[in-house]
Amino acid sequence: MQIGINIKNVHSYLKNKLDELKNDANVNVIYQKDMKSLRNIDVLITTSITLEELESANRLKIIFLPYTGVNHLPLEEINKKNIQIVNSHAHAPIVALKAFSLGLALLGRVVELHEQLKKGKWHGIDGTSTWSSIAHKRCGVIGMGEIGKHLLGYLKPFQIEITTLKRYQGKCTAIENVIYYDSIEKVCQNSDIIFISLPLTKETKNIIDFNILSKMHQQYIVNVGRGALIDEEALYNALKNKTLKGAALDVWYQYPKNGDTYPSKYPFHELDNLILSPHCAGNEKNSRQNVYDEMLDNIKRFINNGKLKHIVDVKNEY
Amino acid sequence: MQIGINIKNVHSYLKNKLDELKNDANVNVIYQKDMKSLRNIDVLITTSITLEELESANRLKIIFLPYTGVNHLPLEEINKKNIQIVNSHAHAPIVALKAFSLGLALLGRVVELHEQLKKGKWHGIDGTSTWSSIAHKRCGVIGMGEIGKHLLGYLKPFQIEITTLKRYQGKCTAIENVIYYDSIEKVCQNSDIIFISLPLTKETKNIIDFNILSKMHQQYIVNVGRGALIDEEALYNALKNKTLKGAALDVWYQYPKNGDTYPSKYPFHELDNLILSPHCAGNEKNSRQNVYDEMLDNIKRFINNGKLKHIVDVKNEY
Repeated sequence: MQIGINIKNVHSYLKNKLDELKNDANVNVIYQKDMKSLRNIDVLITTSITLEELESANRLKIIFLPYTGVNHLPLEEINKKNIQIVNSHAHAPIVALKAFSLGLALLGRVVELHEQLKKGKWHGIDGTSTWSSIAHKRCGVIGMGEIGKHLLGYLKPFQIEITTLKRYQGKCTAIENVIYYDSIEKVCQNSDIIFISLPLTKETKNIIDFNILSKMHQQYIVNVGRGALIDEEALYNALKNKTLKGAALDVWYQYPKNGDTYPSKYPFHELDNLILSPHCAGNEKNSRQNVYDEMLDNIKRFINNGKLKHIVDVKNEY
Repeated sequence: MQIGINIKNVHSYLKNKLDELKNDANVNVIYQKDMKSLRNIDVLITTSITLEELESANRLKIIFLPYTGVNHLPLEEINKKNIQIVNSHAHAPIVALKAFSLGLALLGRVVELHEQLKKGKWHGIDGTSTWSSIAHKRCGVIGMGEIGKHLLGYLKPFQIEITTLKRYQGKCTAIENVIYYDSIEKVCQNSDIIFISLPLTKETKNIIDFNILSKMHQQYIVNVGRGALIDEEALYNALKNKTLKGAALDVWYQYPKNGDTYPSKYPFHELDNLILSPHCAGNEKNSRQNVYDEMLDNIKRFINNGKLKHIVDVKNEY
């Protein structure tokens, strides 16, 4: 079996694990520099795949992604070739922690007060400028997969109330005090801070729209899902006009290709009620190992004709 | 009984509570604008007191402070006049939350990555630049009063290990995994991140010194106690030379009197491994009420000859 790795800088932990696998099983590992096409590849570890690459991939059975989101892949064409996509959920605890940390920083005005004090401007000491504790707050959680569940665990010591969607009933066991609503609009209106960790699909694109964002004068949003879950223009205007109180965004609308890139065509970087985070929620120091452990376990399952974990439902796009 | 309030902008919640007290008890309340001296004052609510003011305070029995630290007061002279100081511990849960939030922001590089992305510089997405989760970390806690105890509660979901001083044995019941050391130096050397919430006294001044700070290349400090617990020059140099990996400071060396003031005579504001916070840990939106509730409870105890809570031990300075 040929395992191809279409990643530039392969982490030494993954390399070592694949070396171990080669010794144990009838496996050959081909790295990017030796891979001219996907013609002979059975199993591909990659972060993306182009239509051109896909064309030659006649033996390819599985694509393993070292993260969760699949919205950037040519799903239809992958499906047509009967290739399965397996993604990773091992990042969930740390993505949830990034969301939680950003939420505390937002309510606590950590970034804003830091920037001011860097200039010698003191806020707070005179009592004119205060921050908010997350304790006893209504925390909206939109997305109750692994990330949402871990987030609930971190929020638990703060006697918060969870507001979320009816369809997550039964998934919020970590917190006693949960209120369910039948629409995202109602969750947003009835929360102090909203954490978003949905996958991006045709259904969820721009699911937070102008209508919702125009009524959140007292509310904050933390987004660790995908940028396009929130309407780009409406979000910028809502933050600028303070119809949305503040936000912390780890996911964006424009990503760097070569060199510096602002994260949106709108000047989000000029706003003072926003914390910018460079899509790093999954990039925790020690968590790569968890992702690779999960992946190797899955590859071994494939070799032994076992049942794979975390197969992406291509129709539902997650 | 005459209650004097030597505070410029008295919070409406406190005003209302004192009005209620006036109706119930034989109490007169004098606000700053009507208070020429402390001559007729029995009970003083204030944030500070000068030697001059103290001179006229011949009836004064108690000073109530709406916070904890007493290091800025003329303790010896207050003691000589047999005046008791009562401070507040109601802030402890939110000061601990500020410490916790700063710690997560520090490990998560929230401020640094925000500042970079504001300029279009992406870190993290390429895997070259990672952050650290607090999970499974060794968290040094120096100061195990009310703040330290609340901090332990917030750290609990993260399977951390607490490192602390032997003299806090028996106070760390919230966490199973606690290692005790006999010196602050050893706590600092054996932790990933150190939270400091000591009071400032003659004993604790500069308790974190050059010697300790020169061996913390892999460690972070969060200080919500008082600035002078850490040697000012040594701290600046340690951060600059990276013998200390990073810090988040809510307490400082220079405070504003009129207009803008940098928080130290050293250019801490130029460092990139430091989060600056303007002594706002106690300044949470709703927590003033808790402070005033505690204070009013104590004033009522005084009126009824009851036992006061939180009397400051002037000899020990806290």
